[in-house]
Amino acid sequence: MKVAEYLFARLRQLGIDSVHGVPGDYNLDLLDYVEPAGLLWVGNANELNAAYAADGYARIKGISAIITTFGVGELSAVNAIAGAYTERAAVVHIVGIPARSSQDNRLLIHHTFNDGEYNRFATIHSHVTVAQTRLWDPRTSPEQIDEALRQCLIHSRPVYIEIPVDLVPASVKADRLKQPIEPLYLEPNSEAKDALDQIIAKIKEAKNPYILVDGEIRPMDVIDEVQSIIKSTNWPAFATPFGKGLLDETVNNFHGIHMGSFDRPEVKSFTEKADLVLNFGPHQSSSNTYGYSNIPKSEIVVAFKDTQVQVGKTVFRDVAAKYIIAQVAEFVGSTSGLQRYADYPSLPRDYKLSFSQVPADKKIAQDQVWRLLANMIRPGDIVLGETGTAGYGVREMPLHPHNRLFTPVTWLSIGFMLPATQGASLAQRELIERSKYHGLKNGRTILFIGDGSFQMTVQELATIIRLNLNVIIFLINNDGYTIERCIHGRKQGYNDVSPWRYLTAPKFFGASEDTYLSVASTYGELEKILNDDKLANGTGLRMVEIMMEREDAPKGPLLHYLETQIAEEK
Amino acid sequence: MKVAEYLFARLRQLGIDSVHGVPGDYNLDLLDYVEPAGLLWVGNANELNAAYAADGYARIKGISAIITTFGVGELSAVNAIAGAYTERAAVVHIVGIPARSSQDNRLLIHHTFNDGEYNRFATIHSHVTVAQTRLWDPRTSPEQIDEALRQCLIHSRPVYIEIPVDLVPASVKADRLKQPIEPLYLEPNSEAKDALDQIIAKIKEAKNPYILVDGEIRPMDVIDEVQSIIKSTNWPAFATPFGKGLLDETVNNFHGIHMGSFDRPEVKSFTEKADLVLNFGPHQSSSNTYGYSNIPKSEIVVAFKDTQVQVGKTVFRDVAAKYIIAQVAEFVGSTSGLQRYADYPSLPRDYKLSFSQVPADKKIAQDQVWRLLANMIRPGDIVLGETGTAGYGVREMPLHPHNRLFTPVTWLSIGFMLPATQGASLAQRELIERSKYHGLKNGRTILFIGDGSFQMTVQELATIIRLNLNVIIFLINNDGYTIERCIHGRKQGYNDVSPWRYLTAPKFFGASEDTYLSVASTYGELEKILNDDKLANGTGLRMVEIMMEREDAPKGPLLHYLETQIAEEK
Repeated sequence: MKVAEYLFARLRQLGIDSVHGVPGDYNLDLLDYVEPAGLLWVGNANELNAAYAADGYARIKGISAIITTFGVGELSAVNAIAGAYTERAAVVHIVGIPARSSQDNRLLIHHTFNDGEYNRFATIHSHVTVAQTRLWDPRTSPEQIDEALRQCLIHSRPVYIEIPVDLVPASVKADRLKQPIEPLYLEPNSEAKDALDQIIAKIKEAKNPYILVDGEIRPMDVIDEVQSIIKSTNWPAFATPFGKGLLDETVNNFHGIHMGSFDRPEVKSFTEKADLVLNFGPHQSSSNTYGYSNIPKSEIVVAFKDTQVQVGKTVFRDVAAKYIIAQVAEFVGSTSGLQRYADYPSLPRDYKLSFSQVPADKKIAQDQVWRLLANMIRPGDIVLGETGTAGYGVREMPLHPHNRLFTPVTWLSIGFMLPATQGASLAQRELIERSKYHGLKNGRTILFIGDGSFQMTVQELATIIRLNLNVIIFLINNDGYTIERCIHGRKQGYNDVSPWRYLTAPKFFGASEDTYLSVASTYGELEKILNDDKLANGTGLRMVEIMMEREDAPKGPLLHYLETQIAEEK
Repeated sequence: MKVAEYLFARLRQLGIDSVHGVPGDYNLDLLDYVEPAGLLWVGNANELNAAYAADGYARIKGISAIITTFGVGELSAVNAIAGAYTERAAVVHIVGIPARSSQDNRLLIHHTFNDGEYNRFATIHSHVTVAQTRLWDPRTSPEQIDEALRQCLIHSRPVYIEIPVDLVPASVKADRLKQPIEPLYLEPNSEAKDALDQIIAKIKEAKNPYILVDGEIRPMDVIDEVQSIIKSTNWPAFATPFGKGLLDETVNNFHGIHMGSFDRPEVKSFTEKADLVLNFGPHQSSSNTYGYSNIPKSEIVVAFKDTQVQVGKTVFRDVAAKYIIAQVAEFVGSTSGLQRYADYPSLPRDYKLSFSQVPADKKIAQDQVWRLLANMIRPGDIVLGETGTAGYGVREMPLHPHNRLFTPVTWLSIGFMLPATQGASLAQRELIERSKYHGLKNGRTILFIGDGSFQMTVQELATIIRLNLNVIIFLINNDGYTIERCIHGRKQGYNDVSPWRYLTAPKFFGASEDTYLSVASTYGELEKILNDDKLANGTGLRMVEIMMEREDAPKGPLLHYLETQIAEEK
C-alpha cells in the first residue's frame, strides 16, 4: 500500500467522501490517488475558497480535507484555516511539498523565498492548527497520519500534514487501518463525581434556572444529551449565535438567542433574577456574547467545556464533561426532585411574519424581511447568514428540526459563507445520498449574503454550479459594507464596493441559461418569488437579489451602532 | 499631528499616491485619514487581491502600501506578501488592530482565536516581512514608522506596521518629517577596491565575455549603470526572466533570455566557451534559471548582489556593489583597454512574426502566437504574462524602451497577475499624470493570462473597471491548468477548471455595455482584433479571449515536460 493510498483510506474511514483543494505542481502526484480512493475531487477556484468550503463541509459531516500545494497554495488558505481553528471545524490540511532531495540540498526551488528554507510554511501553520506533521520516512508515515487525524478529531480543529512529492508512492504497511481512529474522552474520576454532586445539588435547589446552549456542544459531541436536558427540565432554554441551529427549536421552552444587553425587557428581567444557568459549550467571544453581555454571572453558572466544568466560582479542570452532562441528563430525566416552573415565565419565541402583515408595495427593510424569509425554510435545510446584516438577520428565524445555521461567531471573515455554502451543501448531499440525513431527502442549502461579502469569494459560485448543488442564494444588495457603515464611517467612500450586475453571475460562471434568477425591491415581489415552485423546489443554483437601503440593519448591535453614530453627529 | 497623519505623510513623501486594501472594523478610523492625506483609497474586493495589487504597484513606483484589518484581513494577504518578499517588492503592510485596552485585558474579541492572544498574526508576518513594528506609544510611533519604512526601502521587501484603533488620533511630533527616509548603501572600503581591481583585471583579460542581467538590479537601483555597461562594452547581453524588461532591448547586443539547457545551439556553444560573465542582480531560483541551467560557472563569473560581489570563487561580502558597478561602468565607458568582439558572435535576437507569415484560417497555437502578439506592444506599455503558458509566451516578445515585463520568477502564485495588473496600471497612470513616465503619455497595461489563473482572483477586474484603468486583457482559454497538465496528469480531471463564459466578465463586474470584447480562434481573427483601433487606443478595460488547445505550450520547459510525459506513456 502506498502512502497516498493509506492517507486517503483513512479519510474515507472517517466519513470524508470529497476532498477540496487546488492542484499545484507539488501535489499533482498525490492527486492521482484521490479518485481511485473513491473520493470526489472538488477542485476549487482558489485555496482560500477551498479551505472555507472544507470548513463548511466539516461543520456538517464532522471532518473534511483540503489539499494544497507548497507555499503559494497553503498560504492562501491560512486565513480560512485560522477560522476553522477558532470555530472548531475539523479540517485536515494536506500539503504537497517538494521532493526530499530538493529539501536536503536546500535547492532554491520555486514556491520558496529563494533562500533554501523549507520550513517556514509549516511554522506559519503551527499557529493555526493543533497538530503538524511532515511525512518523510515510510516506516513512520502511517502513525504520523493517524496521530494527526486523531488530534483533528479530539479537538475538532485543523491539522496540517506535509507530503513530499517523492514520498507519495512509497510503500507502507496497511495493518494500522484495522484500528479505527477515534476521538478521546476523559474517563470519569473522583473530581468529576465531586463536580456532578455539586451540580445535582444546584439543580435541586434552583428556583429560577435557565439553560444557555453554545456552539461548542457540537465539537464536544453532546448535542443529544443537551437536547434531552432541555426536554426533561422544561426550563427556559436560549442559544448563543454559535449554538442556534444545533437543537430542536420547536420545543416550547426554546426562546431563541440570548442577546444580553440587546434582549427584550422581559428576557432581561427573567435572566437577571436567575439563580442557576446551565451553560453548555461556552464560546465567549465579544461577537458571540453581544459584547460579553449574555455571559452568565459566575456565581450562578454551571459551565461545561470539553474537559472542564465550572460550578459557580469553582473550576474543575481535566474532568469528563461529556460524562457529567450525560449524568445530568439521566438525573433530570428520571428524578422527581427537580423544581419545575409552576408559572412558566413569559418569554418571547422566535416567530415568522406573514406576507399578509406587510404592504405589498413597501420597500424591503431589515426590520421585517428576515421573519418573512423564514417562511421558506423547511426541515433539513442548511441556512447560512454571512457576517453583516444577513448574519444578524438569520438569527431571528425560527428553525425547524434538522436545520443547521451558520451565523457569524468569532472569526467573522467576510467571504467565508459563499464557499462554506459549497462545502456544506456537498456534505448535505452526501449524507442524503447515504440516507444519513435524518430521513430527509430534500434538504437545501440557503445562503443569505451581502454584496461586499459576495465579492470577496464570488468565484466559488462556479463550483456550486459545476457540482449542481441544491443551493439558493439571497444576495442582499445594499450598496457596500453596511456592517462597516454601522460601525464607523457611514457616509465614507471606503465602505463602498464596486457596483456589480449581480444576477449576471450565474451566466458568467457557467450556469445554464434557464437558471432561476430574480430580483425583489418590495415585499410583494419577494412574496411572489418565495411562492415560486422553481425557487423552492428547483434543482441546482437559484439566485435572488434583494435590494435594501445602505443604512439599514436588523435590530440589535448593528442598528445600535448606526443610531449612536447618527446621534453623535448631531 | 496625529499618528495616522504622520504615517500617511510619510507614504506621500515616498511617492505613494494610492493605498490598496479592504476596510474592516479595526482599520476604519485609520481610513478616515487616507483621503485627507491626498491618497487615493483603492478599495479592493479582498485582501489577497489588494496585496497582489500593491506588489504590482510597488514594482512600478518603487514602493506601495496596503491597509488590512486584524486577523481575518491580514491573514488573507499573507500569500501575496510572501510573494513580494520573494521577488523584492517594497510593500508596506499596515494593519489596524484592536484598541490597546482590549489587548491589555486579553479580551476574547472577534477576529482572534478566542484565546486572549493578540500576537499571533504579527508572528506569522515575521516570516514574510523584513521588519515588524507595533505602534503603542505616541512618543516612539514616528521613529517606529520611519524605521519600518527605511527597512522597506533598503531591502525592497515588505514590512509590517500595526496600529491600534485607539492610537490613530494620538498626537505625535511632526519634526522628523523634515528628514527624508532614504535607502542605505555601503560606502566603498578597501575590500570593495580590491574586488574592483580584480574585476577590472578580468574585464581587461576577457576574450569571450557576456553579460547576464537579472531582476535584482531593480531593488539594487543599478539599472542605469548596467545599461551603460551593456552599451559601452557591446558585449552580448542576456536577461533572465526576472531581468527582462528592465533594459533597453533595442540595442544590437541584447539577445533575449538566457534559457540554459533550453537555449538554441548557437547560444549554448557561445556561452559554453565564455571566459567571463558579468552577472548583475542574480536571483537563482529553479524557475528563473531554467532548472539552474543558465547559472554561470563560478570560475568565470563576476556576480553583483546588494552588498556582495563574487569574483570567480572568491566572495567579497559587505561591499558596496552599487559603487563597484558604477566604477565598472565608468571604466568600460572610458577605457580603450577593453577587448571588444572583433567578430561579433552570431546570436539570435527576439523577433516578431508578421501576420502575413501565418495562414489566416490556422488555429491559434502557442508556437507562433506570442511573436504575433508582440506586434501590438508599444513603448511604455507594461506587459504581464501570468504563470502558465502566458508567462513563458511573453518572454519571447522583443520589447521597446520603457516597457516593463512581469513574468513568472520564483513565487509563481497563480492569481497574482490580474490584481498586479490593477496595481501596475494605477502606478503607471500616476506616473503619466505627473509627467514622470519617460515622457510617454499613452502607456497601456497589457495582461496575458490563462483561464485557471483568471479564476483565482477574477473579482479584481471590477477594480480595474471602477478605476477606469487603461488595461487590455488577453484571456487564454485552453480549458484548464495547462501548466499543470504539462508537468503531470495531462489527461487528469483535477487539472480541469469550471467552464466560465469569460467575456461576460466585464458586464458582470460593472463595465459599460460598450466595453471592447472579442474572441479569436484563428490567426486571421486575431489580426483583425489587433488592428482594431478600439483595442489599441481605446480607454478603460478591453478584453480578448483567445482559444487554444489544452495540450499546447510555448517552446521551452513546459513543452519539454509535456513531450516527456507523452514519451513515457508510450
